[in-house]
Order: sequence, then C-alpha cells, then structure tokens
Amino acid sequence: MSLDNHVDPMEPALRQRLVTALTPILPAHCLLTEDSQLRPYESDGLAVYRRCPALVVLPETTEQVQAIMRICRDMDVPVVARGAGTGLSGGALPRPDGVTLGLGKFNQIIQMDADNTVAVVQPGVRNLAISEAAAKHGLYYAPDPSSQIACSIGGNVAENAGGVHCLKYGLTVHNVLQVKVVTIDGELLTIGARSLDTPGYDLLALMHGSEGLLAVVVEVTVKLLPSPPVAKVLLAAFDDVQKAGDTVAEIIAAGVIPAGLEMMDSAAIIAAEAFAKCGYPLDAAALFLCELDGSAEEVEEEMAQVIALVEAGGATTHRVAADDIERAKLWKGRKSAFPAVGRLSPDYYCMDGTIPRSKLAYVLSKMGELSRHYGLEIANVFHAGDGNLHPLILFDADVEGQLAQTEEMGGKILELCVEVGGTITGEHGVGMEKINQMCVQFGPDEITQFHALKGAFDPKGLLNPGKAIPTLQRCAEFGALHVHKGELPHPELERF
Amino acid sequence: MSLDNHVDPMEPALRQRLVTALTPILPAHCLLTEDSQLRPYESDGLAVYRRCPALVVLPETTEQVQAIMRICRDMDVPVVARGAGTGLSGGALPRPDGVTLGLGKFNQIIQMDADNTVAVVQPGVRNLAISEAAAKHGLYYAPDPSSQIACSIGGNVAENAGGVHCLKYGLTVHNVLQVKVVTIDGELLTIGARSLDTPGYDLLALMHGSEGLLAVVVEVTVKLLPSPPVAKVLLAAFDDVQKAGDTVAEIIAAGVIPAGLEMMDSAAIIAAEAFAKCGYPLDAAALFLCELDGSAEEVEEEMAQVIALVEAGGATTHRVAADDIERAKLWKGRKSAFPAVGRLSPDYYCMDGTIPRSKLAYVLSKMGELSRHYGLEIANVFHAGDGNLHPLILFDADVEGQLAQTEEMGGKILELCVEVGGTITGEHGVGMEKINQMCVQFGPDEITQFHALKGAFDPKGLLNPGKAIPTLQRCAEFGALHVHKGELPHPELERF
Repeated sequence: MSLDNHVDPMEPALRQRLVTALTPILPAHCLLTEDSQLRPYESDGLAVYRRCPALVVLPETTEQVQAIMRICRDMDVPVVARGAGTGLSGGALPRPDGVTLGLGKFNQIIQMDADNTVAVVQPGVRNLAISEAAAKHGLYYAPDPSSQIACSIGGNVAENAGGVHCLKYGLTVHNVLQVKVVTIDGELLTIGARSLDTPGYDLLALMHGSEGLLAVVVEVTVKLLPSPPVAKVLLAAFDDVQKAGDTVAEIIAAGVIPAGLEMMDSAAIIAAEAFAKCGYPLDAAALFLCELDGSAEEVEEEMAQVIALVEAGGATTHRVAADDIERAKLWKGRKSAFPAVGRLSPDYYCMDGTIPRSKLAYVLSKMGELSRHYGLEIANVFHAGDGNLHPLILFDADVEGQLAQTEEMGGKILELCVEVGGTITGEHGVGMEKINQMCVQFGPDEITQFHALKGAFDPKGLLNPGKAIPTLQRCAEFGALHVHKGELPHPELERF
Repeated sequence: MSLDNHVDPMEPALRQRLVTALTPILPAHCLLTEDSQLRPYESDGLAVYRRCPALVVLPETTEQVQAIMRICRDMDVPVVARGAGTGLSGGALPRPDGVTLGLGKFNQIIQMDADNTVAVVQPGVRNLAISEAAAKHGLYYAPDPSSQIACSIGGNVAENAGGVHCLKYGLTVHNVLQVKVVTIDGELLTIGARSLDTPGYDLLALMHGSEGLLAVVVEVTVKLLPSPPVAKVLLAAFDDVQKAGDTVAEIIAAGVIPAGLEMMDSAAIIAAEAFAKCGYPLDAAALFLCELDGSAEEVEEEMAQVIALVEAGGATTHRVAADDIERAKLWKGRKSAFPAVGRLSPDYYCMDGTIPRSKLAYVLSKMGELSRHYGLEIANVFHAGDGNLHPLILFDADVEGQLAQTEEMGGKILELCVEVGGTITGEHGVGMEKINQMCVQFGPDEITQFHALKGAFDPKGLLNPGKAIPTLQRCAEFGALHVHKGELPHPELERF
C-alpha cells in the first residue's frame, strides 16, 4: 500500500553518535545495527507498509529501557515500541529516522497470585501463555485476540486488544489492574492498583489503546478469572441478513450475554466451508455462532432462551454442537475465515470498524453498493454482539490501480461506520492505517485536545510519531477540515 | 474540620467586573450574588468544610456553560463545578475567589433508547431517576451509590461513583459510553461512542474520577441493563472476622460474582440492629449480606454454592431471606448503618479506602491498635467483594482536640490501606479530604505527570484548584516528599 508520509533516514553522523551512546548501556546482542538484523523489523502484521528502522534495541531490564529513553530524548530520536509485531494497523511500523524498541526479552511471568486471582507479567509475555500458566489454578486471562498464540500483553495494552470473548469479559482495559511504564524522560511510573479504582486521573485507561505514543509499558498486572466449567455453541442460519441481525439484538435485549457471538455473511460462509469443512449451510445468507459459558444449569437455561429466540427470529436451521469436538469444528470455520477468504482472491484487506448493532442491515446494503461501485468483492465476518465489523475486501495487487481502489473503498467503509454512529476501529487500532479517518471521527477541537494531552507525556513528540492521531495539517490535506484564511488552530501542536 | 489552605476572597472590583460580564449571558435567576443565595452552596456532603463562593451560576444551556468558562478563563477566575452536592470528600467545596457552577438545571432525560439499551441524560439528572425512567422498558442503570436518591449523574462521572452493586456491574466508568464536556476554553468536546472502544486516547475514562479538574460534563450517555428477574440475599454471621473474610475470598474464588457482598463488624452490627430491628445476631463478631441476582435457576444454583462455602467457612448462623420483605429488612440494617452509628456518638467521620481482600484481618487488627492509641472507637462497614472499607470513627467535636485526633487517625488508616497495597479511596474521591494522603499513594514522578496532564486541559489551573492532586510543595510540607537542596522538581507545575 502507499505510504504517503515519507520520512528521511537518520543522518549517518547522528546514527553513529546514537550507537556510541547506546553501546555502554546494552549488551552487544541487544543492539541491532546490521541491515540483515533490521530487516525482520521492517513491518508489523500490516505487512503492506514496510520501512527499516535506523536501529533496533532489545533491552533486557527496565533500567536499560529508562536509559534508552533518556538517550533518545536528549538526541531527539523517535522511539517506536514493538511487542510481538502482530498488530494489524501498522502501529509498530518503524521510523527510518528512529529506534525500534523491542520488548521481546521482557518475557517472564513475574508472579502468579492465584489467591488474589492476578498475575504480574512482563510485556513480552504472550497472551495465551498467561492462560496456560494460570490453568493449573483453574484460572485464565479472558481477552483473546485472534493472534493470541503470538501477540504479547504489552501490545495488547497498547492497542486495547479485544477478541471473541470481549462482549462478556471486556477488552484489555477491563482486565488489567496496573501497569508500570517508562516515559520519554526515563521516569518509571506505577499506574493503577489491585483494586477497582484508584485516586488521581485515570492514567491506566489512558495507557490502553494509546499505541505507544505516551510511554513504554514494562510490566502488566492482569486480572484472572475462574475457567467456566461448561461452554456450548449454537449455530443458527438465516435466509436474510436482517433477520440474523434482529435475532442478535433480541438475544442481547433478553439479558443473555454470550461468551461469543460471531456472524458471517454468505461470501464468508462459502469460503470458510470450502476451507474448513465445518458443516456450515452453504445456502445461508448469514449465520451466527453463539457460545454460552458458565455452570451447566446456567448454560442449559440460557441456551433454551437463545433457541426460542432463534426460532422466533426465523432461522432456517439451527443446532447446538453435541460435544467439544463438534464445537471446535464449528469454531474452526469462523477462525479460519481469513485464510479461507485468502484462497478466493490473490489479496485481501481486512477492515475493522464498529457500528450500532441496529444499523447492521443498512451498513451491509451500503457496503454492497460500494462493492458494486468499485467492482471489488467483500466478505464479512462480524463480532455481532459488540458491533465490530471485519469486512474483507478481495483484490489483486498485480492489477494496476486495484490496491489504491481497495484503500479508497476501505476508507469509505470506515466513514460509513462513523456516519451511522460507530467508530473507525473495533480492536485493531488506528496506527498508520486509519489515520486519515481520524479526521472524520473527530473534529479539530478533539484532535487539538489529543495533541495537548500527548504533549503532557512527550513534549518533543518522540514516541511513535505520525501514528494514531493526525495533525490538523494532515486532516486539512485529507479534506476533512475547514481551514479558515489558511490558518490552522494551535499551530504549536503541529509537531505531533 | 480544619481547612488548612486559606484562600482569600475575590477582590470586590474583580467580582463586579465578573458580574457585569455574566449578566448579559445568563437570565437573572441563574446568577446568584446575595449572601443568602450563596450560603446553601458553602459545602457539599463533607459539611465540616465550609466556605462561600464569590458567585454561583446555574446555567440552563450548554452555550451558557461555554460562555461562563470563557469569561472565567479570560478573567483568571477559578471554577468549581457542582452536581447535587452529595459528595463526601469536599470535591465541590467552593473557592472564595471563584465561581461555583451548578448543573442543577441540566435535569432532562434527553433520550431513552430501549432498543439500543442506552439513555442520554443531562448531568443534573438524579442517579435513581434514570432507573425509574428505564423501568417501564425492563431496564435499569446499574451503579447505585448510597446517595442515589439525590446524587446526580454528572457528579457520579466526576467521582467515578460505585455502590453496592459495583463488584458485579462495575463503577460509573464501566457504565458510561459517551460524555460531552466543556473545557475551560469553552470548547465542547464529544468523548467516547456507543461502542466498546473508541480510537484516540481514552479521554472517556480520563474524565471519570477527574473531580472537575479537567472539564465540565454537560451530557452523559449511559448503558442500561435488563433488570434481573430474581434477587435473593443471604445473611451469614461469624464469631471471628478472619473467618468471615476468608469465606468472602472463597466465594469469589469459586467464580460466584454476587450482586452485593457487604460486611459489618460487631460495632456496626450492634448499632444497626438497635436502629433498624432487622434481626441481626448481636453476638456476631462479623456478618455479611450476600445478594445474588439473575434468572431463578442461576440464583438457586449459586445460592447453594454460597451456602456450602458459608457452612464450610464456619458461620455460626446463616439464613436466606424468605421473601422480598425480609430481604428489604436485612438490607435496611446495612443501609442505615451510618445514621445508626451516628446515634452512638455525637459525631462520626466516614473513611473510605480499599485493601486487597486477603489483608482484611490484618487491617482490622491494625485499626484496633490505632483505635486504642487514639482512644476513639471505630465501627466498620465494608464492601467486602471489592475490598472497599468504610471505617466510621466515633468522636465528639465538643471535646477539645478530638476533631484533630480524628483527622490524624483517619489519615493513618488511609496510609495503612496504601501500605498493604490498597488505595486511599474506594468511591468517595480525594477532593479536599484526602489530598495529603495522595502524597503517600503516589511518588513525585506520578504527581508531576498528573500535573502535566492537567496542564493539557487547563493550562491556567482554573478548574477546581487545590483539590484531588496535591502540589509537590504540599507533599513536602506534609513530610511525604524528600526535598533535595530546597528545590522541588518541575517548579513550573506548582501552579496547579
């Protein structure tokens, strides 16, 4: 994809001075300077954007992180923090004039406190590794982004990661009690506590989803939950997307909070079935999987409620997985929807936006219009419970102009989400990918306030510059800001 | 109580200029200037602190709030926002050199959207009024501070209010989707969205608990929940506080999340029983009320689990309320614990701190030591599920020195909460009351960061100055900051 904001590489003399400053504070294997060493860091999970950092540092201690931050601040060098590099919005895309600070060596579980149902972990610990370590105590960590095998908890905090279970169990921010962070000044701050609330401004929530622009996370205390004794999944298919959406709304309105509620449209169903042979009805216009968890009695009672609503909602077919093997099979279709769609088309682009549940049918019909206008097919998977859409746009990067068309259409889909009262990101963050759409989501007053807040943490604008929050200049160029007499408000904040 | 930071009243000439500036933008009945009109605003729920504001404004529209803020900014006049004035930490205590901005006329429910289970309300709407309006749709608003008949939703946001149900349903921050706020520059910002997460920095959580220091809330969009069909309450009594605390921990560890879990010690039990005749066992060292809600089957199953744990935990007696009348009676004792204790003693002081659940017995024994040392009795009520303690210190303000002793002992209790890994506030906020203990809770780096963040919203430090976040100067005077060579870090931030 086109990276429209060019950044010049770091001056060789500055680079040399930086290496000289970093060498005494880092073991040799923690400072990467060779092109072959830097290459693996040139992109994150949004691999269409690529560029090499000037240097990569892989600190092993908090003191090293503090020292790196102070050196970079003193030399005015941008710092891009990076966890496992699985992000999908380009948030960890390097700066050619900056340092990529990898937290991969912060990979220890510091404390597993089953009595108080919390774990203290380093930011490089993988999401799933927390649940694996907690399993022997009958506990687990609830947020489960699709990348949970690989993604790390520090990145989960930076992006406020969600997952299939977030409707019932919340996002990362709802499952983290405390973080330790290092500011660009090298100060180590302890934020939050092992209680529901803390005095002072809520910096804990502020750190979540701040995409590496405010500070670098070096320790995370997460809540653990008791593993639910029983989980069951129901598949319900419909001949009409509206009926499926209405039934979802009825389930939520009845007070049932499913552990997962995932919807797919016809294109996604056909792709997934061809790939995973999971027994999905190929003639359905839409289907959803509804997972319930809890005690046996609770699940049984809620499942009866859901089945009644599914029948009343006009499902053409429905069934509850008979056992855990069938349950895994039904989920396999959903979980392999992305690679399955990838077989239909040389390339696909996964979007991420949220909409009010009641607007689903309208949004799908508008996306159909966009699809016809651009001549590009869309398959839809949808976290239906919380309104998080993942349209997959199918395209061929080898066809001249199709990439640009895809980007443009993707932008229109995000703007459609804003138009119906939703947002431009459900769980992937803004990063590089959606920075223009931030100008649609927010007005100049809100963006100005964001920059003022950024300045309170990072006055020089060195942490992950150019990501997440656009300059007003950028919004003006994008055409989403009315510029009066050629003057932008608050020009002093344009440094961010 | 002693208000240790004296503030001079507003200069008469400035006051006259301010009245002149406000008169054209406000109807006459919205601008209070006479001493008799100002007197009712001299304190909030922490009535031991009193002082009169220079003026009170009661705007009726958002445009009026914007105009007031701009005028105060231009004239360097402090602004103290005020909801229903029920706060218990002095957060709405006026400034003699400032304006109190009351939101009482913002009392409309703007939209009751049952389909999407949200309500849009003005900040002066009472907490309970939301649930009353939602009841016809089978919905309610979950957070229920004890003052819910009187307190307003804007104040709930400012203090991040909790309540008996917050263990299961969360604090205010977990039940609000969007706020509109006016900054000191008069800008109207829309923060949050009707979805689980929004892009950009999490200003929504940041506004919660910011105690009027960042902006003034003029609209709140809250989540509504379906009313649970069944609620049951169990009373369990113990001959030992430790056993009661351990049983609470077992219930939580078993995965049961009670709708309410409230504990009382012997002093509180005796006072409540004498007052409310609710059938509490007078010989118990501790008792708790455990409320479960949900479907009939869910409640029945979980109650069986809880009863088994209560029996295994060595309860001397336990019973489930047979019907809603008995349930109301059991709760009446708990809910009247404060006035009941008030009959035992000429005065009492209600503290508010949180501790890890596992530290309860240790903290109670340390509080016993403090009680003996100061010669002041304590009665304890305790939101046991989430570790929020409310010790009530009994004293007599007419006895020379006892008020100062009470304040000092209260401070020690808060410091004890910090020592065991808890915090100095559960739900009442910091306000004026706990500002010194913030120096114990946080180090100078965190406090400096708080001030930097404040500066990003309110560069002149005009919004509710002197509350919530201490200056480092104050921490130094309190003795909780090591001052090196007479110099405080970041002197430029001392204006807040």
